[in-house]
Amino acid sequence: MATPVKKTRRTAERILDVTLELFNRFGEPNVSTTLISAELNISTGNLYYHYPAKDLLVDRLFDRYEASLSALLKAADDVHDVEDAWLFFHMLFELIWQYRFLYRDLNDLLSKNRRTETHFQYVLKEKTQAVQRVLAGLSRGNSVRLTAPEAESVATAMVVVSTYWLSYEYVRDPRHALEPENAGAALLRGASHVLSLLAPYFEPAQKQHLLGLAQAYSKPPSPATSAPRRAAVAASTTIGRAVQ
Amino acid sequence: MATPVKKTRRTAERILDVTLELFNRFGEPNVSTTLISAELNISTGNLYYHYPAKDLLVDRLFDRYEASLSALLKAADDVHDVEDAWLFFHMLFELIWQYRFLYRDLNDLLSKNRRTETHFQYVLKEKTQAVQRVLAGLSRGNSVRLTAPEAESVATAMVVVSTYWLSYEYVRDPRHALEPENAGAALLRGASHVLSLLAPYFEPAQKQHLLGLAQAYSKPPSPATSAPRRAAVAASTTIGRAVQ
Repeated sequence: MATPVKKTRRTAERILDVTLELFNRFGEPNVSTTLISAELNISTGNLYYHYPAKDLLVDRLFDRYEASLSALLKAADDVHDVEDAWLFFHMLFELIWQYRFLYRDLNDLLSKNRRTETHFQYVLKEKTQAVQRVLAGLSRGNSVRLTAPEAESVATAMVVVSTYWLSYEYVRDPRHALEPENAGAALLRGASHVLSLLAPYFEPAQKQHLLGLAQAYSKPPSPATSAPRRAAVAASTTIGRAVQ
Repeated sequence: MATPVKKTRRTAERILDVTLELFNRFGEPNVSTTLISAELNISTGNLYYHYPAKDLLVDRLFDRYEASLSALLKAADDVHDVEDAWLFFHMLFELIWQYRFLYRDLNDLLSKNRRTETHFQYVLKEKTQAVQRVLAGLSRGNSVRLTAPEAESVATAMVVVSTYWLSYEYVRDPRHALEPENAGAALLRGASHVLSLLAPYFEPAQKQHLLGLAQAYSKPPSPATSAPRRAAVAASTTIGRAVQ
């Protein structure tokens, strides 16, 4: 039988899971604690016992995101060729997708939540350093050829495009872009666009390979069926094994 | 003496000017009609007479932005070399800066204001087409060399980076990035980064010229003193004359 401590921890986790789902679906500013407790079928008193303020839910979800991101960004060191890079940016986009509410109303969150304000700066720095390590790995693997100033400038552009790609999709089609059934295609476009910033610097064979990958994935399966396919790609590459 | 009609129109314009300033300073969600009328030293009744709802203020400001943007984007046809392109993107960034509240809480505005939702899509399309015309002009002027798929991909990246550059600056330093005294430097970094996406495609002489421009402007003067300098550059180029 579960001990009371275990049960409390399980409830706290379940609250977080449901909150993340609601934030992603409706946007954080549009989700009240009343809605969260109704969705969980618990009293608001019970919710407050675990999270005395809505901001704490945002904080804990941000912690989760930051931990997953740090783990993923470590894989930057294992990127040597275009296929590794392709997988790396796909995984990055999937993680951003899982926590898309953070990106949906980012500036609003930053102005309201002190913790997000400081930690998001750290997230951006970590992301920039990881992209720079990806570029260094690709250079060492003789996959790309770029000077130090080029690498710095391309890394910044890659970070900006990866951070705001979902916002861009949302602006272009606010009513559909961020619905789960369109996720696969949106994430694919994002990862392709981030990698295309590197296209002029890839060695000819790698550039050809990038085009091939983009074509092979250009008709993405639905999110439900794409997971095993990505898992297969992940398992077949060094970087995939490092992350799994 | 001013006729009553003229006076009414002047008041309506003055309300818009002050509202734009407040929206830019504090963010649209944080500015109430009470604050606007207090700043203008008029009664809320008088404000409502001109604009019966806050949304109408957003709509009219968006109209102004859209009209200025359309006029500016026409200049895309006059871009032939790196110096024209440099000026074009600087002017685009200055316009975005003037209406930065639209970009600060963009997703929030899109979900609340129907007019913004539809018109922002149009703005993005117009911007993308203009950037494509910039690339076509540079190609005709033998300044860049890129294939059609490269041009499409680079144009998208240029639109994403120009649309979200100020957000990126804001995330990195929420308390200072969007203060007027930092505007000059932020706009310069944005325009440089957008143009750097084209760097690998520029002809060697044009690429050298781009580096020279970036260095010449790398210590930007304060916003107050930079306007005459930009005006001088504007007057000395075809594209500048077309826009002025």
